[in-house]
Amino acid sequence: MDHRGRRSRLAQLLPDSLVLLLGHTATVRDHPADHHPFRQDATFLYFTGLDEPDAALLVDTASGESTLFGVEPDLEDIVWHGPRPPLAERAATAGADSYRSASDLPSALAGRTPLTLPAPRPSQRDQLQDLLGDVAPSHDLIRAVAQLREVKDEEEIAEIDQALERARRLHAAAMAAISPGCEVAAVARHLGEVVAGTGGEWAYPVIFTTHGEVLHQFGQTGRMEAGDLLLHDGGVTSDGGYASDVTRTMPVTGTFDGRAEALYDIVFDAQALALAMMRPGVAWRDVHHAVGRKILEGFADLGLCGGDLDAAAEDGAYGLVFPHGVGHLLGIEVHDMEGLGEDLVGYDAEFVRSDVFGPSNLRFGKPLREGMVITVEPGAYLIGPLIERFRADGDFDGFWDWERLEDWVGVGGVRIEDVVRVTVDGAEVLGPPIPRTKPEVEEAMA
Amino acid sequence: MDHRGRRSRLAQLLPDSLVLLLGHTATVRDHPADHHPFRQDATFLYFTGLDEPDAALLVDTASGESTLFGVEPDLEDIVWHGPRPPLAERAATAGADSYRSASDLPSALAGRTPLTLPAPRPSQRDQLQDLLGDVAPSHDLIRAVAQLREVKDEEEIAEIDQALERARRLHAAAMAAISPGCEVAAVARHLGEVVAGTGGEWAYPVIFTTHGEVLHQFGQTGRMEAGDLLLHDGGVTSDGGYASDVTRTMPVTGTFDGRAEALYDIVFDAQALALAMMRPGVAWRDVHHAVGRKILEGFADLGLCGGDLDAAAEDGAYGLVFPHGVGHLLGIEVHDMEGLGEDLVGYDAEFVRSDVFGPSNLRFGKPLREGMVITVEPGAYLIGPLIERFRADGDFDGFWDWERLEDWVGVGGVRIEDVVRVTVDGAEVLGPPIPRTKPEVEEAMA
Repeated sequence: MDHRGRRSRLAQLLPDSLVLLLGHTATVRDHPADHHPFRQDATFLYFTGLDEPDAALLVDTASGESTLFGVEPDLEDIVWHGPRPPLAERAATAGADSYRSASDLPSALAGRTPLTLPAPRPSQRDQLQDLLGDVAPSHDLIRAVAQLREVKDEEEIAEIDQALERARRLHAAAMAAISPGCEVAAVARHLGEVVAGTGGEWAYPVIFTTHGEVLHQFGQTGRMEAGDLLLHDGGVTSDGGYASDVTRTMPVTGTFDGRAEALYDIVFDAQALALAMMRPGVAWRDVHHAVGRKILEGFADLGLCGGDLDAAAEDGAYGLVFPHGVGHLLGIEVHDMEGLGEDLVGYDAEFVRSDVFGPSNLRFGKPLREGMVITVEPGAYLIGPLIERFRADGDFDGFWDWERLEDWVGVGGVRIEDVVRVTVDGAEVLGPPIPRTKPEVEEAMA
Repeated sequence: MDHRGRRSRLAQLLPDSLVLLLGHTATVRDHPADHHPFRQDATFLYFTGLDEPDAALLVDTASGESTLFGVEPDLEDIVWHGPRPPLAERAATAGADSYRSASDLPSALAGRTPLTLPAPRPSQRDQLQDLLGDVAPSHDLIRAVAQLREVKDEEEIAEIDQALERARRLHAAAMAAISPGCEVAAVARHLGEVVAGTGGEWAYPVIFTTHGEVLHQFGQTGRMEAGDLLLHDGGVTSDGGYASDVTRTMPVTGTFDGRAEALYDIVFDAQALALAMMRPGVAWRDVHHAVGRKILEGFADLGLCGGDLDAAAEDGAYGLVFPHGVGHLLGIEVHDMEGLGEDLVGYDAEFVRSDVFGPSNLRFGKPLREGMVITVEPGAYLIGPLIERFRADGDFDGFWDWERLEDWVGVGGVRIEDVVRVTVDGAEVLGPPIPRTKPEVEEAMA
């Protein structure tokens, strides 16, 4: 990928600045020599392509020159880790104009205060503190980085497509494996095999559960029974570390019927509405609100609520059954750029985050731009404790029919999620088709 | 497991003390809400059994009472993560006498200075700094914890046995899959499937390579060719998170011959010697030295070195072909308790770490105790850059035959590693048999 070009575009947005981009160090798991698989800082990777620990890039946007700080391999490294490219070669890969030892970074920064980004990991925070003391991240830098990274180029789309092809294999395997009587954990283990076989890794902890109403249900327990809905939110990484993020919800029997089918129809129609609304200039918070309103309409048709839908939607009535956001940016990171600060990346002075429960969980609210890649993931859930809380608060008495709603608890939850690219005048679902309509899902499960 | 009993034994070793055991927080991967799979602090897990973030245990060894500090689930937790046991229930699981909110920990510690352990993760370091300022870890506490954890009880042995049964499946699959022409990465991917199918996880990043002379070769590249040795160092976790750690080295053809066979014989005999020497009271550094001496003997028999073997061994001649330690403690952590400080856990005033290259890398040197579980993993490697360096230093001129040695570079490396328990009068290899003799390996590959 054209890392030098990306830095030039950053320089255009932030002329006459000194920018420090810090790569990650290895992350300790148990003890100092025991690490989690190395995961590079996404912004550093975006601007350098270097997937190695203990590196930093100092960019002078006035001169356009950049210096890579890194570690030259020594004999110990060669014995333990084998021959590695010298720093000069890595600098060439990143298109850096010069390179120095990482140990020179403090002296190179002496008396200068470069713009820096937020540090989501304690190790990076400590490193910044040591280098620069108490310096706040630069909002200008965050906004400039977000403006570049939020639009994906063709190479990035190819990575996301590869990640989605792997997700397709994962979801096809799940649909083929699900049937009444199966242990949830056994099928989840099989899905782990499928992911390993793709050559990628889980892009995030999989959600595979008959309790889809628990939004992040990471434990896989129990037995699937006829009548259950199985919610599967699973994604796989590409070779370049990009994410996919796909959710399908299926009747364990393989045939939609009854209340589960009604819930599925509501969510399917809500996703269709979102896809139809998407185009450059449309604010994502407005899509979220329209989707929430549409979901309320579905519940009204079932007789679970009634009255002035517009007013109820404004007051946040849909947060009860749709408490999360309709989608988030996706890229190298599943929730792309969330570490830079959700409000700085996803909102601005004009588009501010709602404080109403439900839309308050929307991670991005600004207008869409051509080339953005975003998940579209409406859901509808019957969450017992949340219904109890709303009922006790009394705000929606007369709108929600508490008794009928509580009678529905046990149906569980439905979410349908795809990865979507904003086009010049609309939106396209990325990746290969993954069964989504009821007949498609039923056929894949047959 | 009997966590209360373990704390009683700690109290016997450290009477009249206040001990603070900190659990881990979640570890950020990309952004604050994106975490690596949760991995609990091993010592906290050992003394509490609680595998959840943001907990701490304060133990008063005078009264024998312990207080759990933790987080009570709120509505947000219930919506996102589902119903969780209340703190009272988790305190009961850990056998704690009382429980309080984690936010009360600073006030509970006000004016008191509990004994603490080293903090290998930056997050834990920051937390200790906030709670107690600059307080050094307690060497008494480290030694007491090590004295308990270094001897494994029957429940721990059962976990390690399960981890080893999974490693057996992994190694059997590898032996069946290896043959000339195979892509190393493709077989490695298949091994990922096998590990996922066991229900465990990789206990550490697998080493699967035709370049076994690179000690920690984590990349899997290239094609296996007739004449190559394939080194496979791979372990799987048990349900309780205990590790296995097993290495086998195989001729890609499935038949041992030539120089590769000669190298295998040397390492096999060295491992047999180590196993024969092991018994309570024998210092592990002496086993290491005897193994190094034995490996030199093997190279002398091949005509690659010669002269006074005892003197050369004393001077560290074997570090050239055997640059790592002969084994390390294993338990919840692959390198058990290494985060507490290798020298404090593995050495003491009488048994001090060698500063000679080779034995200097031995992580544990003290006498063995009944019930210790330790890896036994001699190896022999032809490492080009290391041979160059030794030759340039000139220390072993006349002992090593540099020319013949350099002619051997390309054979690669052999390591054979098993997990072994020290018994009352000897040692036993734990877990099910995994092919190790030449005929066993050849049969498994046929």
